[in-house]
Amino acid sequence: MERGESTVQGEGAGRGGVVLLSGGIDSTTVLAQARAKGYRVFALTVIYGQRHRAEVEAAKRVAAALGVAEHRVVEVALGSFGGSALTDRRLTVPEGEGPVRSDRIPPTYVPARNTVLLALALAWAEVLGVFDLFIGANAVDFSGYPDCRPEFLQAFEALANVATKAGVEGGRFRVHAPLLFWSKGEIIRHGVALGVDYGLTVSCYQADEEGLACGRCDACRLRAAGFAAAGVPDPTRYRGISPSLKES
Amino acid sequence: MERGESTVQGEGAGRGGVVLLSGGIDSTTVLAQARAKGYRVFALTVIYGQRHRAEVEAAKRVAAALGVAEHRVVEVALGSFGGSALTDRRLTVPEGEGPVRSDRIPPTYVPARNTVLLALALAWAEVLGVFDLFIGANAVDFSGYPDCRPEFLQAFEALANVATKAGVEGGRFRVHAPLLFWSKGEIIRHGVALGVDYGLTVSCYQADEEGLACGRCDACRLRAAGFAAAGVPDPTRYRGISPSLKES
Repeated sequence: MERGESTVQGEGAGRGGVVLLSGGIDSTTVLAQARAKGYRVFALTVIYGQRHRAEVEAAKRVAAALGVAEHRVVEVALGSFGGSALTDRRLTVPEGEGPVRSDRIPPTYVPARNTVLLALALAWAEVLGVFDLFIGANAVDFSGYPDCRPEFLQAFEALANVATKAGVEGGRFRVHAPLLFWSKGEIIRHGVALGVDYGLTVSCYQADEEGLACGRCDACRLRAAGFAAAGVPDPTRYRGISPSLKES
Repeated sequence: MERGESTVQGEGAGRGGVVLLSGGIDSTTVLAQARAKGYRVFALTVIYGQRHRAEVEAAKRVAAALGVAEHRVVEVALGSFGGSALTDRRLTVPEGEGPVRSDRIPPTYVPARNTVLLALALAWAEVLGVFDLFIGANAVDFSGYPDCRPEFLQAFEALANVATKAGVEGGRFRVHAPLLFWSKGEIIRHGVALGVDYGLTVSCYQADEEGLACGRCDACRLRAAGFAAAGVPDPTRYRGISPSLKES
């Protein structure tokens, strides 16, 4: 929060917003920030056929812990289209040792994913009568994802305002992507300052049913590097490794 | 088809496209037109919690009859958000006797529906490597629907080209809404000329399991008026009325 800004007097006071909540670090931080700014939060988790269903359980824990007005889980079989290592078990999730490459669109890109997620958030927002959509898109870690760029977010905001009855009748939808240019370390430091318990979250692309992480995929490596950069103890529970901090 | 244009040499020759297919008159006509222009058609039916699941059966019949390359049916619980008489059984589908009013947004408007439908079509198109999206949006019958206007379709096209890997890498998505300014009568005349059997289609907002129409909702009334205007026998099967033309 900005200096002098309080929870009650924040920019979100008296406003409601739909927050896309995957259960990972970024969307959890966005939710915590929206709450800190005073927004009444409607959290939307979309199961799009991703392998990491453990994230959905994480989303439920986060939504409960951060005091949302309502949490909805909606399924859409985006994975049935194929084309992504995140939704198609025949493709391989990249693993490695060094820094995650960010100079090409990785195989974990899900075609039109953020378009579908924001479209669903817009649908719910219009029913709720709220105009603020929040997404944890990040252009630093995933510079290769076309739908994590400001051009995309601006284009969706423009679309939202002509696509809806609420927009046509004078409402003004806004797409908030507050973490767009933050490093993972900055995101984690911000969240910790807001009191977020990242032990509730799951990032691993191939987490098991209990939410235990593989420690090797791009998401795990970005996460671990983020905690290191933030200088914050990493609460992640890995498979085959004794829990580093605690059992949740 | 335009004069001198043949199926093999049409604008769609050698191209593939995703056609949003509800199983009603408009989307069926769009599909027939795309096929006549030479497109290889991938038909996408989205079950979004609408009451008229009979349309999905109609979509399957149409897809088979018109020779699509593939037909996918995808579910998304848009109806769980509420807010529309089409997806919420607590709201009433308008019925009446006179002409359908088109000067206000009707309660059958589904918030952000076409945004969600086109987002899903875009997702599949990107996986398929095709760039043409077809939607039977119509601004005449549904002048009150914000997402049946050219501004909306243009905004979605702009979005598609910044939202996707294929767009960023130089592909050019196009959103086709060829029926946008056609009357229902013109649509039906065009489809009949292309050999469409509208007996396969279902339009009724509250069709029963067998696809029998109520004859009273806005969709039924627009449909019946369309056949009358086109001067074409109406193949619709209504509940409690002996079939006018045939059993399908």
